[in-house]
Amino acid sequence: MRNVLFIMCDQLRADYLSCYGSSWLRTPNMDALAARGVAFTQAYVQSGVCGPSRMSFYTGRYPSSHGATWNFIPMPMSELTVGDYLSQAGRALHLAGKTHFEPSAEAMAAWRGGASDRSAASLLQGGFEVVCRHEGDLPTGKEDYRRYLESAGYAGDDPWLQHANSGRHPDGSVASGWQMRHAHLAAHVAEPHSETAYVSNAAIDFIRRHRDEPWSLHLSYIKPHWPYIAPAPYHDMYRRAEQAPIRRNRASEAAEHPVLAAYRSHDECRSFDREDVARHVRPAYMGLIRQIDDHLGRVLEVLEQTGQADRTLIVFTSDHGDFLGDYGFGEKELFHDVVQRVPLIVVDPSPAADATRGTHDGRFAAAVDVVPTILDALDLPAQAHRVEGRSLLPLVRGEAADDWRDCVFSELDYATRRARHVLGRPRDADCRGWMVRTADWKLVAWNGYRPQLFHLAEDPDEFHDLGADPAFEPVRQSMSARLLAHQLTLKRRIAVDLDRIEAMTDNLPPGIHIGQW
Amino acid sequence: MRNVLFIMCDQLRADYLSCYGSSWLRTPNMDALAARGVAFTQAYVQSGVCGPSRMSFYTGRYPSSHGATWNFIPMPMSELTVGDYLSQAGRALHLAGKTHFEPSAEAMAAWRGGASDRSAASLLQGGFEVVCRHEGDLPTGKEDYRRYLESAGYAGDDPWLQHANSGRHPDGSVASGWQMRHAHLAAHVAEPHSETAYVSNAAIDFIRRHRDEPWSLHLSYIKPHWPYIAPAPYHDMYRRAEQAPIRRNRASEAAEHPVLAAYRSHDECRSFDREDVARHVRPAYMGLIRQIDDHLGRVLEVLEQTGQADRTLIVFTSDHGDFLGDYGFGEKELFHDVVQRVPLIVVDPSPAADATRGTHDGRFAAAVDVVPTILDALDLPAQAHRVEGRSLLPLVRGEAADDWRDCVFSELDYATRRARHVLGRPRDADCRGWMVRTADWKLVAWNGYRPQLFHLAEDPDEFHDLGADPAFEPVRQSMSARLLAHQLTLKRRIAVDLDRIEAMTDNLPPGIHIGQW
Repeated sequence: MRNVLFIMCDQLRADYLSCYGSSWLRTPNMDALAARGVAFTQAYVQSGVCGPSRMSFYTGRYPSSHGATWNFIPMPMSELTVGDYLSQAGRALHLAGKTHFEPSAEAMAAWRGGASDRSAASLLQGGFEVVCRHEGDLPTGKEDYRRYLESAGYAGDDPWLQHANSGRHPDGSVASGWQMRHAHLAAHVAEPHSETAYVSNAAIDFIRRHRDEPWSLHLSYIKPHWPYIAPAPYHDMYRRAEQAPIRRNRASEAAEHPVLAAYRSHDECRSFDREDVARHVRPAYMGLIRQIDDHLGRVLEVLEQTGQADRTLIVFTSDHGDFLGDYGFGEKELFHDVVQRVPLIVVDPSPAADATRGTHDGRFAAAVDVVPTILDALDLPAQAHRVEGRSLLPLVRGEAADDWRDCVFSELDYATRRARHVLGRPRDADCRGWMVRTADWKLVAWNGYRPQLFHLAEDPDEFHDLGADPAFEPVRQSMSARLLAHQLTLKRRIAVDLDRIEAMTDNLPPGIHIGQW
Repeated sequence: MRNVLFIMCDQLRADYLSCYGSSWLRTPNMDALAARGVAFTQAYVQSGVCGPSRMSFYTGRYPSSHGATWNFIPMPMSELTVGDYLSQAGRALHLAGKTHFEPSAEAMAAWRGGASDRSAASLLQGGFEVVCRHEGDLPTGKEDYRRYLESAGYAGDDPWLQHANSGRHPDGSVASGWQMRHAHLAAHVAEPHSETAYVSNAAIDFIRRHRDEPWSLHLSYIKPHWPYIAPAPYHDMYRRAEQAPIRRNRASEAAEHPVLAAYRSHDECRSFDREDVARHVRPAYMGLIRQIDDHLGRVLEVLEQTGQADRTLIVFTSDHGDFLGDYGFGEKELFHDVVQRVPLIVVDPSPAADATRGTHDGRFAAAVDVVPTILDALDLPAQAHRVEGRSLLPLVRGEAADDWRDCVFSELDYATRRARHVLGRPRDADCRGWMVRTADWKLVAWNGYRPQLFHLAEDPDEFHDLGADPAFEPVRQSMSARLLAHQLTLKRRIAVDLDRIEAMTDNLPPGIHIGQW
């Protein structure tokens, strides 16, 4: 394998891809990708929040290991990403788009001090060599696209908002994309100048320029993430189309878990509690996905044209899903499958993977598997003292994997969320939740509160919380045992690798003789 | 409070202090210390191994949080110690003696690069300002004492071994202290030049020199740790004295847990499996303790003489105990109380603590409580985003502490031990054990093996392992639930403090408006 193309969307629900069963949206290029590889139908993120989920994708570690438990909370400087591992091997991981990486104060100080053996890319960009960084409206990544829009003639002090993410009222005034009532409008930007086109163009240019050398690229779309507003023609492509049903069971919401009840105080949940809002927003969400699909087609076409498709590992996924009004919630974070389950397509061009092309794999895959999959594909060290996921290549290559995992885990830290105040929890209260999901059951443990339990085999929509039902104590016990076993195997000894461990084993420093008579 | 004197012994069993009930050894100065403060009779370390236990004492965090899971395994550079916290407050934590701190490769690189905002003391010495560092025979801390011995006229290429830790045969040849058969001999060093005298003198000199300014000092004895050989007159002070009974139950050893059985292959266990070895070594161990006690008297006397006793917080403890042949084991590491329980005496000179002076406190105390106790005594920030222990001052000052812990936790990582090879576990096998101890029960969970369970209320000697007894499944369940609850509250979000969390709460970056209709 020479190249790696790691494509991520933001807030893309698995069930909106036609290759994942969507009847309301066709995604021909994502489907084509699935036809060339394996689509994992039970792929789960390790957090339903952008930052922690992405850091798990980039480090191969769970949030409680990498420490970035919510957006804008940095990882400790000691955490390394797949970009760091590639650079250790003399390669680079380039970036076109979003990472949500936040350097720690410690890393900033090290960088200012000209410090350590770590590069600026490692300390400030999470190991990514930036082709273009685009974080939407976040100061950490809005300048590249701002300059691009300005050079394209878009005026205003915030062209990202005023043009790319807002429409226009009939009187020509700005209709902000931040207000969902404007989701039906066309973004005031020519589609070729939109965010999705911009990062796609950067990727296409990169792939052309590097055709004669090995490369690794993270193409990371911020869409279909907020603001929900699409450029023409995507803005009204689905305005009159079939929509996914809204999953709602008001009876179950009446006797709801306290943390979920507290989340309903958030603006996005207050808005999406209204079915008309969900119905109004979803066509824009679908249009944004279809736009990504069209540009994905352009990217794949360039790979073919430049003769690199047969030597490029492609991973296509998303950092989490989106409630879109299901359960009366908006956004993400919580542990429902619509948030935690994501599309994950792996295209391995090697002949060893021919037998599985176009198949769906129902075994549990996880965000933490992406780093070991990339390292495996490039024959690089597995970093097993840090990486907590497993390479997916044996599955993609139809090799035996008898001891494959039978459950997945996810986490949430809501310490910085309004919900903590609603619950009256002090700032030093532990505000974490933990999901364990098997094929049939989902347990959500909450520090300080009773757990939730769902029997997915009979209740796939997760309407009936059995967390307080005495009859299911044995199930809660066995699910809790899984969570404990998971916690007890997280990788904590990160400062030495396994070669060092083997060299140290039963081998005290010279001159030390313990225990001799 | 102006000063902190944090005194640690190495491998000192709690039951060898007369203030902890020893009938076979009198420790008048340790007893005098207890008379001036509070002796915690149920104080436990977070690992039965020097390095990880000390890093828990110095960081206030559990080994699976600080990452130094065995000796010579560094913490990630992102971990901070009480020395770092004091230096952030413009103070310093000085060191006379042992820390077992190992800088990570990352910290070494940062130091070489003149990097970061961290001092050399922080990067290379774990936050300690070194007065003298003494790690016995370890290259990280043998030069100061070597030079001292050489200046005192002790010859040879390794005076630490040849003089301070070896005796002499009748023919004048060196009888190495590494061989326990020489434990009855006098170390070939004048007592005032011995290791215990050396670090005591350094502390005394420090306390005199800094009498007019606030100071914090870690006085850290390497004794009664190996080699078991004492200078005259301590070498035969207890040769004919009463000894503690040897705790042994060969029947229980017959059907032993596989990890314990594997430990019996270690040299120290093969030797201490012989009762004559244990009997031969214990008088030297007792002599080394009594020697420390005498020097502790000198240190306390100087505090009084210089008028600093009334403004100095004193913490006296040990990094773990010693099997000394109990259960047929030598050394430490495993989860028996003789290893995990340590002396912990806190002397708080403030009038608020007058009511508790001379009392014993049977509530559970832990190594991770020392950092918060020191920060509390000095009115410094609690570092609650990192520190996992609790200040003991409320207990010492007789304040209400209704929600005080009712169990303690400890950990072991035997990946680098011969036991892993004996068990046939590969280098990437998870080799960790986890102890949960309540007043009545002790559960030891082992990754990859069945747990151990002991009913301490009826079996205080931990002879009868109920880990496989179906009748006790409910107890194992409840103890496992405690372990899970503990794991789920460990501090993983270390890169931002609680002020930052509060500032971030329900407060997105400027210009971001999520969820508005």
